[in-house]
Amino acid sequence: MRIFIAGMDGYLGWSLALYLAARGYEIAGADRFLRRKWVAEIGSYSALPIASPEERARAFHENFGKMLQLSVGDLCDYGFVRDSLAQFQPDAIVHFGQMPSAPYSMMDVHRSIWTQTNNITSNLNILWAMHEVCPQAHLIKLGTMGEYGTPGLDIPEGFFEVEFRGRRDRLPFPRQPGSFYHLSKVHDSHNTAFACKVFRLRATDVMQGVVFGTHIAEMNVDPRLRSRLDFDQCFGTTINRFCCQAIIHHPLTIYGAGGQRRGYLPLRDVMQCLHLILQNPPADGEYRVINQFDECHSIRELAQLVEDVSRELGYATCQTHYENPRIEAESHHYRPDREQLLQLGYRPHHDVKSEIRIMLNDLAQHAERIAAKRDLLIPDIRWDGSRRKSAALPAVKQHSQ
Amino acid sequence: MRIFIAGMDGYLGWSLALYLAARGYEIAGADRFLRRKWVAEIGSYSALPIASPEERARAFHENFGKMLQLSVGDLCDYGFVRDSLAQFQPDAIVHFGQMPSAPYSMMDVHRSIWTQTNNITSNLNILWAMHEVCPQAHLIKLGTMGEYGTPGLDIPEGFFEVEFRGRRDRLPFPRQPGSFYHLSKVHDSHNTAFACKVFRLRATDVMQGVVFGTHIAEMNVDPRLRSRLDFDQCFGTTINRFCCQAIIHHPLTIYGAGGQRRGYLPLRDVMQCLHLILQNPPADGEYRVINQFDECHSIRELAQLVEDVSRELGYATCQTHYENPRIEAESHHYRPDREQLLQLGYRPHHDVKSEIRIMLNDLAQHAERIAAKRDLLIPDIRWDGSRRKSAALPAVKQHSQ
Repeated sequence: MRIFIAGMDGYLGWSLALYLAARGYEIAGADRFLRRKWVAEIGSYSALPIASPEERARAFHENFGKMLQLSVGDLCDYGFVRDSLAQFQPDAIVHFGQMPSAPYSMMDVHRSIWTQTNNITSNLNILWAMHEVCPQAHLIKLGTMGEYGTPGLDIPEGFFEVEFRGRRDRLPFPRQPGSFYHLSKVHDSHNTAFACKVFRLRATDVMQGVVFGTHIAEMNVDPRLRSRLDFDQCFGTTINRFCCQAIIHHPLTIYGAGGQRRGYLPLRDVMQCLHLILQNPPADGEYRVINQFDECHSIRELAQLVEDVSRELGYATCQTHYENPRIEAESHHYRPDREQLLQLGYRPHHDVKSEIRIMLNDLAQHAERIAAKRDLLIPDIRWDGSRRKSAALPAVKQHSQ
Repeated sequence: MRIFIAGMDGYLGWSLALYLAARGYEIAGADRFLRRKWVAEIGSYSALPIASPEERARAFHENFGKMLQLSVGDLCDYGFVRDSLAQFQPDAIVHFGQMPSAPYSMMDVHRSIWTQTNNITSNLNILWAMHEVCPQAHLIKLGTMGEYGTPGLDIPEGFFEVEFRGRRDRLPFPRQPGSFYHLSKVHDSHNTAFACKVFRLRATDVMQGVVFGTHIAEMNVDPRLRSRLDFDQCFGTTINRFCCQAIIHHPLTIYGAGGQRRGYLPLRDVMQCLHLILQNPPADGEYRVINQFDECHSIRELAQLVEDVSRELGYATCQTHYENPRIEAESHHYRPDREQLLQLGYRPHHDVKSEIRIMLNDLAQHAERIAAKRDLLIPDIRWDGSRRKSAALPAVKQHSQ
């Protein structure tokens, strides 16, 4: 099976390349290393030092006995996308090649527009190129659970059967995303559903929860194969940020009341889920939506989990509530479905707490690197387009969900 | 009241400028004449000859006794948008400045992407500029009834109260648009709703039906004030195309079975509706969605109306079904709401048939101009990205809705 990974140098892309290569898949991919550039642009770096693209390619070759097929190019360039797919003739395309940060997209008019035009253009290029050169391939497009927002209803997987004024229909579940980045993902979802209809393409749109984790097994053999792990306000996801904060005894930065609930899953489970999806493609012309997460937690609960494990391991950490720089509900209903992956055979490796233990161990030797960026840990990108560091809040007493 | 019209040289923009100027409003606007360019690009022109921008400005000055404040510039240029709004300080902004053709957006990868990035960028620029320089202004953004598609349910105005697994919430009504152009409008709607929330802007998102009509009263005084009227497959809307076809005794081109139902309203009623919306702005931070149309008809019914009026006036025309170049349902439920405009005081001027009579009279003296483009009347832009002229179908017997 031949798999093309768009955005192969990123957190998920690089991990998936190793995971699939280790299982004998033929892989190729594209990247132009923008993630490295963005993180540098906001003054940060990966908590775990990562190898240069050249070193990664050498390490890949030495460990897997074959060349890393990574084309350096712009997914917004149609000729590049079409030629890459025409030449490789993939059975599946996994599309990770996008700008993935909500705060980055909220910084100013230019970044908000760039986020949307970049993400939409790369996705449309892939859809048109599939139509032109590999219409039978299976597109796995990375969406986010954040596309749904936090409605007052349970969240189904993409579609729901609804009754209205005595008539029934199966409709797309309404999307209420919370940032210009999340909006770009919603736009991509609408475009992809339509392309499946008019171009008769098959696609799985993965509504993914928040990913955390420092490594997967395939990285253990060689430190040059290590994945990146961001902890800044833009590119660091919640648990990853909390673990980095704990390691340097910085208070865990809870935004607002901390009642925001989301779905989470460890990096190693992302690999398992995507593998199952690759092995079970949808039918010709089918647009399938799958919710991909393991456990749901509030931010407060996660902070407590990280604090508990940290203390076990001897790190004195605490939780502090900060003014929420985002505009979002801090206490809400949240009960998303997760049936399809279980039906495909997904079995979580272990619970969030066990994964946090692994993470803290991985991060321990890089504490100094993280401490050097201590001043980046309090968020200052606000949802109204302004910049101001959030102040710590007096102890928040709010234990109802 | 100061009104800024983005896209002031277009079919709706120019009409609204005259309509509001005649009523004493202070108006300004922007355009870079892309509509003229696109129509030329596909080999066509307006059925009614229109004046150059310079002649329009002169005619405006002579008839209204003031200068036409039209800035030539690109709405995708943030500096241009911000400076235009900062200088004029509008009470309301009517945003028509977008690429409005479904077939044009389906022609190829480049036009589909350009349609989306152009429309999204101009709209985001306006939202950010309002936030920066005129946060109290009322944005009237032009959406389309086509954003909803043709669901099996009645179509409410933007939102619906829904029950799902025993819980209730008011949610955005799901969007299922039918072209990359219509998708761009859905993206804009999502972006606008979000901007109202985080920037506390007020906006009315007008889900507009298909507009038809050759003039409004304010154009009668001077032929240089005339509006454009397109009849090609890209920029001509249904009734406008049918009337132009009737005038030159060309068969009325029904796509497929012709059971596609849509909402329609004459150009003069668009003016009335927008005027009512301008006079009744939503609250601070409110994102309001209004469905704007008068009558619902199937394509077959419209063809019959045009044929009936044509025959009364002595034009021998007939109806012919052609292969449908689009991928769409040709027979479906269609019952959209239209309550808010009626509550604001909207009263239709007259029925579709009366408007068709006016149109045929306006077009009669330009029959030769239309006949010269006779070879453009059969569509060839197909929804799978290919080009092939639709063949005439054997008589379609399909009278159930």
